[in-house]
Amino acid sequence: MAHIDLKNDFPGIRGLMAFDPDAADALNGLANVLLRRESTLSKGDREMIATFVSSQNDCLFCQSVHGAVSSYHLDDSDGILIQQVKNDFTKAPLSSKMKALLHIAGSVQKSGKAVSSQQIDDAKSAGASDQEIHDTVLIAAAFCMFNRYVDGLNTWAPTDQSIYKERAEGISANGYTKPG
Amino acid sequence: MAHIDLKNDFPGIRGLMAFDPDAADALNGLANVLLRRESTLSKGDREMIATFVSSQNDCLFCQSVHGAVSSYHLDDSDGILIQQVKNDFTKAPLSSKMKALLHIAGSVQKSGKAVSSQQIDDAKSAGASDQEIHDTVLIAAAFCMFNRYVDGLNTWAPTDQSIYKERAEGISANGYTKPG
Repeated sequence: MAHIDLKNDFPGIRGLMAFDPDAADALNGLANVLLRRESTLSKGDREMIATFVSSQNDCLFCQSVHGAVSSYHLDDSDGILIQQVKNDFTKAPLSSKMKALLHIAGSVQKSGKAVSSQQIDDAKSAGASDQEIHDTVLIAAAFCMFNRYVDGLNTWAPTDQSIYKERAEGISANGYTKPG
Repeated sequence: MAHIDLKNDFPGIRGLMAFDPDAADALNGLANVLLRRESTLSKGDREMIATFVSSQNDCLFCQSVHGAVSSYHLDDSDGILIQQVKNDFTKAPLSSKMKALLHIAGSVQKSGKAVSSQQIDDAKSAGASDQEIHDTVLIAAAFCMFNRYVDGLNTWAPTDQSIYKERAEGISANGYTKPG
């Protein structure tokens, strides 16, 4: 049960968004910019970064939603690729650029100061642009926020993965929005 | 030097905001909602939560800016109160409610899952409302993002505290905005 009375039964961040619609609009605005604007990083790749960080933070709701959205965009309908990324992305069938970006995201999950110049150099050598490195850091940082918001208030999360898969279709079509 | 070429010399998050104005608008929108909307938590108290979390994350730029803004609102012109909060808030001259909220914020800084039911009960016993607990968790979570964004891209931060004090007056008057 959530630490506060949300006055609704929505799971995860959706319960918080129904509780505080003004904060929800700001948070969804950020999510839509980071994960859905025009970018040389595909939506699937950006959602993968979000999923990896959420997995490292052990946030069931966020890793399930964003894992499902990433799988949707990457034609990973059985979710095998996303599971590989969560288990050990260095062994997943990803480009060297994507692996370098996930190394950076993994450092951001620990601390901003954990990102090393070597990790940045490796990403640039693998072809990552300044904007792609910027977006990776900000997406990883943002999910350190979303994960803490969702778990810090002890929201509940469905364990049935089909619920997230269905939600992923709505997000892919309409973007991030608050309930109602 | 920043890890990427920002094409400007603004310090801290301001250099990042000039680099990516669309992300900046979303981030400022969030900061203005969390730190400046009508609330039973004063602007000074909310900025104190932001400062404490930024201090725990060792982010010089964020703890300096938000410390200065908190001091501005709390008539703490020499910054002594904010320094006490950073050193050991349990010994600072704060209400029991504010101390209970800072305990929650300190847990959020570590992990969402680190927030305990006992910490929530203590805050409620000290008079904190559900909205105040919600806002504390989200502010603390948001600064885990802002701090990682600022330090993950290795931005520079002035060491002259008078610069932050001057900036705090502008923020107090006009809110959070991107450069230019």
